[in-house]
Amino acid sequence: MPKIRSIVSAIILASTATIAGAWEALPTTAPAPADNPTTAAKVELGRMLFHDPRLSSTGTVSCASCHNTMAGGEDNRANSMGVHGQTGGRSAPTVWNAAFSKVQFWDGRAPSLEAQAAGPVTNPIEMGMKSWDDVVVRLKAIEGYQAAFKEAFDDEEISKDTATKAIAAFERTLITPNSPYDKYAKGNKSALNAQEIRGLKTMAKIGCLSCHSGAAFNGKGDFREFPAMFNSYLEKQYQFSNDKGLAEVTGKDADEHLFKIPTLRNIALTAPYFHNGSVKTLEKAVKVMANVQLGRKLSSKEVDDIVAFLNALTGEFPAQTMPVLPATLGSTFN
Amino acid sequence: MPKIRSIVSAIILASTATIAGAWEALPTTAPAPADNPTTAAKVELGRMLFHDPRLSSTGTVSCASCHNTMAGGEDNRANSMGVHGQTGGRSAPTVWNAAFSKVQFWDGRAPSLEAQAAGPVTNPIEMGMKSWDDVVVRLKAIEGYQAAFKEAFDDEEISKDTATKAIAAFERTLITPNSPYDKYAKGNKSALNAQEIRGLKTMAKIGCLSCHSGAAFNGKGDFREFPAMFNSYLEKQYQFSNDKGLAEVTGKDADEHLFKIPTLRNIALTAPYFHNGSVKTLEKAVKVMANVQLGRKLSSKEVDDIVAFLNALTGEFPAQTMPVLPATLGSTFN
Repeated sequence: MPKIRSIVSAIILASTATIAGAWEALPTTAPAPADNPTTAAKVELGRMLFHDPRLSSTGTVSCASCHNTMAGGEDNRANSMGVHGQTGGRSAPTVWNAAFSKVQFWDGRAPSLEAQAAGPVTNPIEMGMKSWDDVVVRLKAIEGYQAAFKEAFDDEEISKDTATKAIAAFERTLITPNSPYDKYAKGNKSALNAQEIRGLKTMAKIGCLSCHSGAAFNGKGDFREFPAMFNSYLEKQYQFSNDKGLAEVTGKDADEHLFKIPTLRNIALTAPYFHNGSVKTLEKAVKVMANVQLGRKLSSKEVDDIVAFLNALTGEFPAQTMPVLPATLGSTFN
Repeated sequence: MPKIRSIVSAIILASTATIAGAWEALPTTAPAPADNPTTAAKVELGRMLFHDPRLSSTGTVSCASCHNTMAGGEDNRANSMGVHGQTGGRSAPTVWNAAFSKVQFWDGRAPSLEAQAAGPVTNPIEMGMKSWDDVVVRLKAIEGYQAAFKEAFDDEEISKDTATKAIAAFERTLITPNSPYDKYAKGNKSALNAQEIRGLKTMAKIGCLSCHSGAAFNGKGDFREFPAMFNSYLEKQYQFSNDKGLAEVTGKDADEHLFKIPTLRNIALTAPYFHNGSVKTLEKAVKVMANVQLGRKLSSKEVDDIVAFLNALTGEFPAQTMPVLPATLGSTFN
């Protein structure tokens, strides 16, 4: 049953709105953890693993199936479709710029890209592998992977640890710099038009950027309660609070409805919106967000301005070479 | 009920076996039909369409899902998995070098790559679109596609015709030259080792190459009855004849069990084998084929030699750039 929340938190957030003028452009490289420095060999191995459907029970679903690197880094579906056509309750977040979030998954339950990469592979409705041991057996049977792991990790074994490290290293290269906003942030004041600048200023003024702060507009992956307004008619329509967020994992009352602040980078490419993918358009998403999170009803002009700015957060997608997936010669696990 | 066939046809085929010395290397370009000359713009558009899951009802299945261009051009499954996890009765043929076959699909019902490309999109268990009209509506709604079609086809509309022409133009670039066999055919006699040469000669001698002839080892896409030996114990085991081949489409007795001769290029990468994907290993496939098609029981040495040669038919896969799929900004059909 929806709880009644005060709008106090929203007001506090709005009062700390980022001041225009201190805009951050997206870094072109992502920091790596001390135990997994990014190397070219790891990135290439990770590129293969990320795109390899043999990491799923059926051989049909790769990481890229739901996090499409040829598009906005997700699948434009309300709920992703895993093995045997199964669907879950959440919308796939984009993998682009995920490296700039402290926590991963909508509920932020993974503290690193490495930890995140391990999850979907053995989720029964996603990639459906029974265990990582089974994944490792499969990878070890592929000569080309033996060589690629050797190249990336020397004498370390093919394991869940090394495989997820390689995937994370690859993901740290998935960065989309040079959006119109980035050019603006770096000093090219004509990179945004008047409407886009109005949109940015409106977002700062009403409080959007209190959460969606920093270079990736994601509060670096902090948590927030969502929705804040449990009795909004829009909450009734979209049923956001059916999903208890982090509490679904921890079972703690204090974690109820806590979600990772998602990035706004490339948001124009990643409809439908919200953790349950229930809102089909960006325009509607802006209205809903202002209402259920900030207790505001925006004018059409404000919505149009914000959408115009959000479109200016679409970055440049680096040219990518397709990996050549190593084969098991003359046989298959299927 | 299996029919009893004579082995006369197999004997005739064997007697016309290609004579060693007249080997053909794979061409590095594929011929295009007069009404669809290959252009760079068509190839780039086709590359996008081929990899775009929005050509399926669910937005989850692209041509590349079952014809994986990062691997052997198919999915290493007995039966491909289409929308909602549905599977059919045949194993996906490789898209690599498909340009060198006169006919497409296992039953050869499509007389061109263009005609083939139209099929899976509206097949309810493959990509599940209700009609090509629906596909066209979807494509027309994507600004990036409007531009790409304009570039490729000038004033011609976005249509089933232009979309399938672009996909076919892209597929004509999917060629894997420079296998060890090709180097051998071009005069480098040390490109194949003694065992591989023995395998090739055995294949010529026993009749394999009577059907699997020409540069692509596919009889250029001629039809053959398969299996020829209906009372083989292996036929009983693998039930090849449950599928009536071309007759499933035409309903004609004369077309019963007629199949396109599939290419042997990259065969080591495309397990499992045969139209129904019932044979898991290349070694077994060689034994089965000799038995059910040529009425022969091969020695272990002969099988090993042939498998060694078939491995030498794995070509060089060209470096490929990932397409960047154009987006519908701020919305999705899903």
